[in-house]
Amino acid sequence: MAKANVKEQILTTSVNLLHSKGFNATSVQDITDAAGVPKGSFYNHFTSKEALGMEVLQRYIATVADIAAVLQDRTLAPKARLQQFFDGLIAGNAANDFHSGCLLGNFSTELSNQIPAMRSTMQQALAGSGEMLAAVIAEGQQDGSIGNRAPAAELAAFINDAWQGSVLHAKTEQSQAPLDRFTRIVLSNILA
Amino acid sequence: MAKANVKEQILTTSVNLLHSKGFNATSVQDITDAAGVPKGSFYNHFTSKEALGMEVLQRYIATVADIAAVLQDRTLAPKARLQQFFDGLIAGNAANDFHSGCLLGNFSTELSNQIPAMRSTMQQALAGSGEMLAAVIAEGQQDGSIGNRAPAAELAAFINDAWQGSVLHAKTEQSQAPLDRFTRIVLSNILA
Repeated sequence: MAKANVKEQILTTSVNLLHSKGFNATSVQDITDAAGVPKGSFYNHFTSKEALGMEVLQRYIATVADIAAVLQDRTLAPKARLQQFFDGLIAGNAANDFHSGCLLGNFSTELSNQIPAMRSTMQQALAGSGEMLAAVIAEGQQDGSIGNRAPAAELAAFINDAWQGSVLHAKTEQSQAPLDRFTRIVLSNILA
Repeated sequence: MAKANVKEQILTTSVNLLHSKGFNATSVQDITDAAGVPKGSFYNHFTSKEALGMEVLQRYIATVADIAAVLQDRTLAPKARLQQFFDGLIAGNAANDFHSGCLLGNFSTELSNQIPAMRSTMQQALAGSGEMLAAVIAEGQQDGSIGNRAPAAELAAFINDAWQGSVLHAKTEQSQAPLDRFTRIVLSNILA
């Protein structure tokens, strides 16, 4: 296997393993076994498990950014964009039967104190998705399709947090119900 | 030290350690070192680290139940009870500078797949606090102090989830701001 392929193999395997099992419960040996590569090859591509964790986190953030692209599609009404964004996130969770939660949320709870560099990357990612949500909500408040009871930035930050909590609950329940409830309350109550 | 004291010493230390560092990142050695007891004494009181984890979880759930007692204080208006409940939860988070999040949320993300018995205890705890919240919201909907845009049980379950997400964000930010925002949006928007 070419070197680039080994690295890609390790990364793809790690996104799944670290997402479903967590960072500390997964050893380098678990990763190389699952990836089908020699354990020694790990350190040709990553200086440490922490370094791999950072790459896994960045890859996950890029996936969410792809789903979030719809938020900037001005051919759709603001609430339709929000609905499609939530649908996209829910589909991502459905793909692993709601067992894994959000890698960003998992790493936040598990690693915020353990790996400071990860904490700032996660902060930026959460702030970034908050800003995109806020822009859509502000647009809806201006065209009158979204209520004005609180500032767009405040609503967006809260909705972001509520999403993380709903994903966490979906994982505990291994069920889609908390995510569907999230969409209903956000679109028909908070933003009504 | 009498045996009962050693067990209590281990438990008190573990509540703090497992809450702040996580389950898998904390070894039995870490716990007995921090508790100042011989490593061997651990297994006189707990069959495994998982068994200790269950006792820590139950102790944490009892603490939250104490804070939740105000929800049943009928001398207070429903929204005042909710405000006091949230204030109590926020004070609990402030006590550890928002570094530790909610142990229930932390264990949910870290251990749902790893320790099935813990998953069902956490499910019950989350469902129980949801029912208490729902009863207060239903009371407010009946006396007209809380809006009727969604059923009480649905609102309560969502608010529960939003709390977990806000705590997670407070931990990532090491800041009280997400928790204050939670209280504002819940009381002035969702339940308005």
